Amino acid sequence: MGDAAIPKPRILVVFGQDFAESFVGDVRSKFPDAEVNFLTLQSEDRIPAGECTIASIVHICIACGRPNKIKDIVKKSNIIVTGRNLPEPEDAKHIKFIHFFSAGLDKVIHDPVLTDSAVPVTTSSGIHGPPIAEWTLLHWLVASRKYNITYENQKKHIWGSGNDYASGIQDHVGKKVGILGYGSIGRQIARVAVSLGLTVYAYTASPKPTPESRRDPHYIIPGTGDADGTLPASWHHGTSKESLHEFLSLGLDHVVVSLPLTPSTTHILGAEEFAVLASNKNPKHRNPYLTNISRGKVIDQDALIASLKSGELSGAALDVTEPEPLPPDSELWDAPNVQISPHVSAFGEEYFVRSFDVVRENLDRVREGLPLINEYKRGRGY
Amino acid sequence: MGDAAIPKPRILVVFGQDFAESFVGDVRSKFPDAEVNFLTLQSEDRIPAGECTIASIVHICIACGRPNKIKDIVKKSNIIVTGRNLPEPEDAKHIKFIHFFSAGLDKVIHDPVLTDSAVPVTTSSGIHGPPIAEWTLLHWLVASRKYNITYENQKKHIWGSGNDYASGIQDHVGKKVGILGYGSIGRQIARVAVSLGLTVYAYTASPKPTPESRRDPHYIIPGTGDADGTLPASWHHGTSKESLHEFLSLGLDHVVVSLPLTPSTTHILGAEEFAVLASNKNPKHRNPYLTNISRGKVIDQDALIASLKSGELSGAALDVTEPEPLPPDSELWDAPNVQISPHVSAFGEEYFVRSFDVVRENLDRVREGLPLINEYKRGRGY
Repeated sequence: MGDAAIPKPRILVVFGQDFAESFVGDVRSKFPDAEVNFLTLQSEDRIPAGECTIASIVHICIACGRPNKIKDIVKKSNIIVTGRNLPEPEDAKHIKFIHFFSAGLDKVIHDPVLTDSAVPVTTSSGIHGPPIAEWTLLHWLVASRKYNITYENQKKHIWGSGNDYASGIQDHVGKKVGILGYGSIGRQIARVAVSLGLTVYAYTASPKPTPESRRDPHYIIPGTGDADGTLPASWHHGTSKESLHEFLSLGLDHVVVSLPLTPSTTHILGAEEFAVLASNKNPKHRNPYLTNISRGKVIDQDALIASLKSGELSGAALDVTEPEPLPPDSELWDAPNVQISPHVSAFGEEYFVRSFDVVRENLDRVREGLPLINEYKRGRGY
Repeated sequence: MGDAAIPKPRILVVFGQDFAESFVGDVRSKFPDAEVNFLTLQSEDRIPAGECTIASIVHICIACGRPNKIKDIVKKSNIIVTGRNLPEPEDAKHIKFIHFFSAGLDKVIHDPVLTDSAVPVTTSSGIHGPPIAEWTLLHWLVASRKYNITYENQKKHIWGSGNDYASGIQDHVGKKVGILGYGSIGRQIARVAVSLGLTVYAYTASPKPTPESRRDPHYIIPGTGDADGTLPASWHHGTSKESLHEFLSLGLDHVVVSLPLTPSTTHILGAEEFAVLASNKNPKHRNPYLTNISRGKVIDQDALIASLKSGELSGAALDVTEPEPLPPDSELWDAPNVQISPHVSAFGEEYFVRSFDVVRENLDRVREGLPLINEYKRGRGY
């Protein structure tokens, strides 16, 4: 492979919490060809370049094993993997790439490393599909199979009546789901949806007319997602209200919002959109059900509450709200058939280990002279 | 097709409850080529052959529309679709086939029509996959994603802590599920499981070494299941404890029981089997999770309670118990991490309409001289 000219990878991992020993072991086992050092910093600290004088360094677990003994750690590293902390741009010129644990970079987007340097930056985009698809499916099924009745009955040792379940339950065969934003999350939701018998419709801002344009450009967890974009029955696109309303008129049973939050996606769904959905529903099915795993602001929340109250929407699963945390006196908590979770749909013990799978992939790509995967395009804004 | 010799299909539908008008319409629309009559009887009544004198006839909706006016209805029918009621065998000799709404025939297995006549009998086997697979997945996800915490917090308007979810949640990528009894239900569970990233292992009583033997012989809802039996990573078989224990040693995260209840499957899973499962678990994963959507008696329930208490099993989803209803004082209700529902996993509004899809298929098969699908093999015992 001609990698003699590439120096030994030395990976510096920086995060806001201490690292569990088993985690350190799992990460190191992914990189038998590299040195991997771990540094814990407070979120506002920059990664120190020379002798470290930061009082908030709580733990350092480097090859030598000595705590709080940090000198030239940035200079001695050529890859940085970080939650948020960054070095000064002038200290980072030799870094091959900086990898972030998150998919979005909103917290660091104005950092000089991102605005004023050319160091390649990569994200963890692509690793959120399985947990978020499972979160989505969980809430669909809780709603469709009346789980809360079962749960409350069990607490009281009540063997419920079959009549509670004989009517009002439908499964997902022959249903339709429209996915707004067909990224890695939408693709894994599509994959599971198809297995349940749903038909999938994809909506994107820009047109995707060719097989190449429909491919998932991000990292993909093996065996998940929709790499080639072949699962949707049809692709739709646009940035106008007309194109969106046309999409929402397909007779959808489910709408999933997995769009990034930008000025043009703020309140992209509101009273008009819910009316379009409801008026085009299949008369034999429940009213449309909304799932939001994006950001609270993509939905007009007051309009959502009104549509749930009127029954225009049959329910909603929300992992995100506006604001967060949702205040105790918000009317949303008790809107009919709403399910709210505290922005945890991506959570799971696999998260960080999977983030390192992206690093592993990119380390191999650097060696082979291939372009990085999940590279942040400076200037795109998300 | 040469169907000039086949008389017009005249379908008699018999059930223990009145039929909704919309249902009557849905059924008739499936059979534009047939006359479809509906008769409501008490479950113990036989279908009357001549003038009807049964006091319990609550409703009859035949072509003529007259209530309680029933004469020669069996003679005038050539297909019977029934929940439980049957005519006398001597009145049924001209019937092309009798179709049951259920998949199992345990309630009618000793009826003279089944024991002493040769009238073909068909079941609704194959239509239970989607609702039961959704029920299964619902309970897996409630357990794995800590849904009950979310639900209880929402009732109290509490935006929960991320810490509640940061540890203890794993998704299903890279997990293993063993399915005992790979019929139409197991196959739809397999289909969904694969979409989530699980590896599927199938266990059957008899060997399935060839592609032909792995095919699903029953009716399949289009777009569901595993018609060719290609989803399992490997097939296993046997009726001995040794072969079962070998299967349970595969490092399974989930075991699903979708076996028929027979003398040889009674208590097929007990203390020994739970110990085998737990001692072969993947050390990085939760302990094995048991799902039973078969019959309560396939599990040694006392052993199950003990394994849940010890943590040997990380949880169990039970749609069936022994006995049913489960008495309020049963210890099972409060066993750790158990989820109990009142034998409703197959329920759904689509059930009866789908049962008629099997009738539709068989009506076409009779016309084309093909063997019936889902035909009951007399003497097999289930």
